[in-house]
Formats: sequence, C-alpha cells, structure tokens
Amino acid sequence: MKVLVMNAGSSSLKYQLYDMRDETVLASGRVERIGMDSSIVTHEVPGHPEVRDVSEILDHVTAVKRVADMIVHPSHGVLKDIKEIDAVGHRVVHGGEVFKESVLVTQEVKLEIRKLFDLAPLHNPAHMMGITAVEANLPDVPQAVVFDTAFHQTMPQTAYLYPIPTVLYRRHKIRRYGFHGTSHHYVSDQAAEVLGKPLASIKMISCHIGNGASITAIQGGKSVDTSMGLTPLEGLMMGTRSGDLDPAIVPFTMNKEELTLSEVNSMLNKHSGLLAISGISSDMREIVQAMDEGDRNAQLAFDMYTYRMRKYIGAYAAAMNGVDAIVFTAGVGENSERLRAAVCKGLTFLGVELDTFLNSEHSKSARIISTADSKVQVLVVPTNEELLIARDTYKLVKEQSNK
Amino acid sequence: MKVLVMNAGSSSLKYQLYDMRDETVLASGRVERIGMDSSIVTHEVPGHPEVRDVSEILDHVTAVKRVADMIVHPSHGVLKDIKEIDAVGHRVVHGGEVFKESVLVTQEVKLEIRKLFDLAPLHNPAHMMGITAVEANLPDVPQAVVFDTAFHQTMPQTAYLYPIPTVLYRRHKIRRYGFHGTSHHYVSDQAAEVLGKPLASIKMISCHIGNGASITAIQGGKSVDTSMGLTPLEGLMMGTRSGDLDPAIVPFTMNKEELTLSEVNSMLNKHSGLLAISGISSDMREIVQAMDEGDRNAQLAFDMYTYRMRKYIGAYAAAMNGVDAIVFTAGVGENSERLRAAVCKGLTFLGVELDTFLNSEHSKSARIISTADSKVQVLVVPTNEELLIARDTYKLVKEQSNK
Repeated sequence: MKVLVMNAGSSSLKYQLYDMRDETVLASGRVERIGMDSSIVTHEVPGHPEVRDVSEILDHVTAVKRVADMIVHPSHGVLKDIKEIDAVGHRVVHGGEVFKESVLVTQEVKLEIRKLFDLAPLHNPAHMMGITAVEANLPDVPQAVVFDTAFHQTMPQTAYLYPIPTVLYRRHKIRRYGFHGTSHHYVSDQAAEVLGKPLASIKMISCHIGNGASITAIQGGKSVDTSMGLTPLEGLMMGTRSGDLDPAIVPFTMNKEELTLSEVNSMLNKHSGLLAISGISSDMREIVQAMDEGDRNAQLAFDMYTYRMRKYIGAYAAAMNGVDAIVFTAGVGENSERLRAAVCKGLTFLGVELDTFLNSEHSKSARIISTADSKVQVLVVPTNEELLIARDTYKLVKEQSNK
Repeated sequence: MKVLVMNAGSSSLKYQLYDMRDETVLASGRVERIGMDSSIVTHEVPGHPEVRDVSEILDHVTAVKRVADMIVHPSHGVLKDIKEIDAVGHRVVHGGEVFKESVLVTQEVKLEIRKLFDLAPLHNPAHMMGITAVEANLPDVPQAVVFDTAFHQTMPQTAYLYPIPTVLYRRHKIRRYGFHGTSHHYVSDQAAEVLGKPLASIKMISCHIGNGASITAIQGGKSVDTSMGLTPLEGLMMGTRSGDLDPAIVPFTMNKEELTLSEVNSMLNKHSGLLAISGISSDMREIVQAMDEGDRNAQLAFDMYTYRMRKYIGAYAAAMNGVDAIVFTAGVGENSERLRAAVCKGLTFLGVELDTFLNSEHSKSARIISTADSKVQVLVVPTNEELLIARDTYKLVKEQSNK
C-alpha cells in the first residue's frame, strides 16, 4: 500500500509518499508560497538530486495537482499512475475534545474540524484546504486525519482543567489540549522498544525540543500531563515563544505599552523566548555558538531555557511519583548534546547519570545515552511524525477494507 | 525595647505591640473600615477579653491615634505613656529591586517606596499612609520597613527574568519578585532550628499555603526561586486566584467575553482558584468538608490544588538538584493535615514519608511530621511575619543607636 502524508499550511504544503510494505519514503517534497505568482515546488526522491519548479500556484487544489504531477513525472516520478496512491493521511493540529485518535475523513469529521477553527485559527482552516484539495484531485482515495492533540486526550481532568471560572470551559472549551502529540506518541513507542520493556510499565518524560518545544509525562503509554495548553504558547521557553509567565504580565504590558490583543499575542509568540533574551537568534545552534564566543546574553538565554526544562522534568516526575526514562527528540533535542548535558546535570537527585561519550555521539538512530548504572534511562529518539501519520492512515484504511 | 508592628491596608490597619526582651505580644488589634463613618477598632491584651470600639475614623492619622489611645488606655492599655514605644516596624508588600533587606525609614526610603506604587498599586500607597500617620502621631519614634519581596532578591537572573522582550524589564521592571518573603524567611530559620542543622547546608522547599499561596526553593538559607512573580497571581492555584495558566488564555478570554483589562485581572484574581472549580468556597476547610460529603467539584478543586503543589515541589527539587526538607506553613499549610497528606502521598519518589500520626497531631509549635526514616524531612512551622518584622525593626534601631 502507498500512503501519501500531507501537512498543509496556509501557504505551504509538505508531503511524503510511503511504501507501507517496508515503510520506506519513495518521495518527499514541499510546495511553498501558495497563492503567490512564484510558487516553488521542491521534490526529492531518495538517492536522486532535488528537483525545483517555480510557477504560479494560486490555491491548494493546484498545489496538490502539482504534487501529483511530480509523483508520476516521467523522469523524477516514482509511480506510473497516481491511482497507485491508496490513501492520504493529513496532519491536523487541533482535534479538540472530539478526536481522541486518528480517523478516516467523512462529512461528519470535516464538520467537526471546521468547528475547531476557533481554537486553531492559523492551522485547522489550512488543513481543511488540504483535505478538500485532495478530494478534488483524487476523488476516490480514502483520507485520514491525525491530530496533534489526540495523544493528550488521556490526560485526567486534574491536569487539563485550568483553575478559572468553569463557564469558560463550558462556553469556549478553554482547557489544556497539548500539542506535538504525534511526536510524543511516536517517540514513546520507540523508546519502549529500545529499552526492551513494555510501555505499560514505564514512567516516561518526553521532551520534544524544536523551535516549538513541549514536554509530556507519559505513564503506561498514556499522556497524563503536557506543557503546552490551550495554545502552543504555554510551557517551556521556546525559540520565539515565552512559555510560562505570570498571567498578570499580559494585562500589565497591554496597559503600559498600549498593546492590542493581537499585538500582545504576537509579542509572546514571535518576539519572546531565546530570541528576546539572547537578542541574537531563536536558533539554539546560534545561541550555543555565541555563548562559546563569550556572549553573556546567549549564555543567559541558554541557562534560562535549560533551567525551565529541568523544572518541568522535576514537576512531571512529581506528577507520576517517579520517572524511569527521559527522552529527547526533535531538532534541538536530537542534535544538541550541550542542551542535553545542561539539563541532565542538575537531575542527579533523580538518579540521572548521562554517559558523556554516548551523549556526544552523532547518530540517526534511537539510543540510550545514560550510563549503565543510571537509575533513570536517558534516550535520544529521532521523531518521525510523518511515519506515524502514514502508519495510522494505513491501519485505518486496512481496517475499513476488512469490514 | 517596645516595638509596634503595623500592617496598613487601604481601609484597615493591623498592629501588634512587642516587648522585645522576651518577644512577647503585649497587645494586638486592628482598625477596620477606615474612611467610613462606623469604623471599628478591636484591641486585645493576651489573657483579657477583646475590646471593641465603633466610631468615625476618616483617615490613617486618626486610626493610628486611636491605636495609641488603646495602648495607653487606663483600663485596657498596656503602657503608661505612648513614648514607651521605641520603634515602629511596617510591613511593605513591594520593595522592588532596591530593597534587598529591611531598612529604617528615611526621606530617600519613602521616595523609593513611592516609586514602586506602580508595581503594587493596591498595597504600597496604603503602607505609605501608615508610615505618614505614625510620623504625625509619634514624630520622634524611628520606623523600619520590612518588605515581602526582600527575601527573594537573592534569586539568580535565570529564575527572575521572564523570556519576553528585555525592553519590558528595562522600561517597566517586569520580572519575578515573589511575595510572602517575610514568611518564607521566618519559617526557613525556624525549620533549620528544629532540624538542628545549619541553614547553609539545607535544600529546603517552603510552602506558604493560606488564601494566597506561594512556594519557595531555599538553598543555603537563600531564596533561589519562588512561585509568585511580577504579581501575586502567578504560581500555585489559590483560594480565588488562578495561578499558572497558558498566557494566551488572557487575550483569548478578553476577546471571547469582551473583557477589559481590569475585568480580566479581577476574574483571575478574585473569581478563580478553589472558588471557581468547587463553585462552593475559597476556603480549604469548606472544600474538604464538601468533599467528604461527596461533592465532586470540591474533590476536583482539592485534587487540582494539591496536584499543582506537588508539581512545584518536584520542579524546585530539580531547581536545587535535590531537597532535604519540605516545610508547610500559613493557615492551610499549618492546619490541613488532609492537604499535607495528599501532597506528600505522590512524593515518595523523592524519599518523602509522612508519619500519619505526627501529621494528624494538633500543635502550635514547629515540628517534624515525617517518619524517622524519611529521606526528606517534612515539617509544619507556624509562620509569624509580625515577629520577624519586630525583630528586624529592633535590630535596625539598636544598630543605629550603637553608632
């Protein structure tokens, strides 16, 4: 079975085509600047040079058409006929309280995703355009949706409710949802495999540290708490997002600086985090480099970032009354040995003991980086949200065809 | 030496008169409804019945005059002449970054306190009225100010800065200050005494749990992090305050419910916390009672409250890379064995083992409530902010007279 995985943004579209027999990627690529006159399609077949094409792509329907054209292209295509695609799986950011797992797309599902536009105004409408564009181009192909929030739907009320008037939950569904669920789910599965233990027996803390960053307490394979909340702003300090702060700072700043709601949102989401403190960059690689060159603000940004991570690990150990494994994933988590070392250094009280050599090794595979004696196992697990979307899609389509 | 301790609010004034030879309270009381036509003065001499007096008290100068009258009153007074008062010590909520310890009141000090009106608009102006009123009534008596924030001025930048544009710190001094400092300071001293160890060697987490609640990581006797922030809204779930939440909830709610800045502040400070979730009360005693009668919302409120406390304890253990002692203080912390049991139950991974019998004992003295084998010692320490204010005032006045 061939599964096309799609991540549609408002002006972009990323895709991967999987052969599910061996879970290999046949081709992958992206369409950028949708809606503009010089849109770019980038397409890559593993082992071959990247192909770029610039043209006018005014909507998502045309974007999907171009992707299909690439996939069956005589010279850099990988399929003879687009009908060889058996299913399409979409990443959808917000599944609200309705979607506790991945589902096949139906009229009802589309209606529910529409209802959630309010909670994810930047993402869900774009995903919907992706779904509709696939329907227009590949009308007979079943589609599935995989939600960033679904994995966290196992959180207990104690963790997902905020201590604010309950009318806000009833009326506007204001609660903790959490994000990066597909990634936390994927790496927790992988980590259990590496550890050779059943997930059900493990208290795990997974740290998805990319430009966005979140951390999840996973007990028995289930998310029991996570740092992102109603929106992806809460929790850890991130590249450009503040993460946690005194909620009173929002009205205080709005008053002092005469900011509108949209300006304060933009300040906290786009002009805060590593970028604000370092004054240099939102990119951890540049922060570490500047820090090594003696930049004090970069050092401060790094210290605040890792200090806040450490506190969350402590908090989630308390949430589960213990922790057996800590997992690092995503861009920074997978690649920054400096970050991992700094975080783990202050966690010896939990029994965390990092192996300096294993931590410094460069590898693309899931692996343990703590010492043999470490009471808590520390792992690096490369995330692969696309593969999990492909797997869920494959499973759902197969289940349906078996009915 | 006789020291009068004063806590002036905008329409109230509390006082205690100490004899510093043995730190006994000679008299204490409060003036309520200042500025109204039926103000109430309540005055108590230990061992004697409370005296109440209703009259018109239109300002703080008159309020202090009435307190002085009570103190030298022929029948329920405790001094022959008001001149026997050697010093007055004031509680001041906000000392900003200027005041790292208690100081004697001078023109410069008053100027600095005025500059902080902006950061504590509900408190500092009232404290200033108290200081001025004492000057008017007792012009020759030295006065000292003891700040709620001062103890936390030892926090490192990593803990007190927020990951938001640094211009907000430079321009408006937006940073973490923390509150309840006098209480955290007092109980950490007391706890070290009970433990029979030097404070310098102890990693301590002190939980000041009253209607307002905050938690502090104290390493070597110094505050290294605390849960309240720019304002007393951040951190733990409280009686009527939300504590931590996704900062994006503030603009989201303002937009959805069309709230003004002052309305959203009021919602988060006065209509959230235990009150919002239980729908019953902001008082932990009533929550526990309702919970025991089977009320599910009360149970949920209690569970959220203790869960959030537990996460902070975990976070602060991580902040210090370990914890030797956990201290409970203030109204709820001192009196609710249920709360202490619920919090400690999920902390066995840290080596916390509560002694059920010791925890259930009713006592007014500082004491250990963990088992002899518990790796982390757990204590109940009754707080006494007034005594610390009296001690600081006494010390400052004595130092000056020795010069």
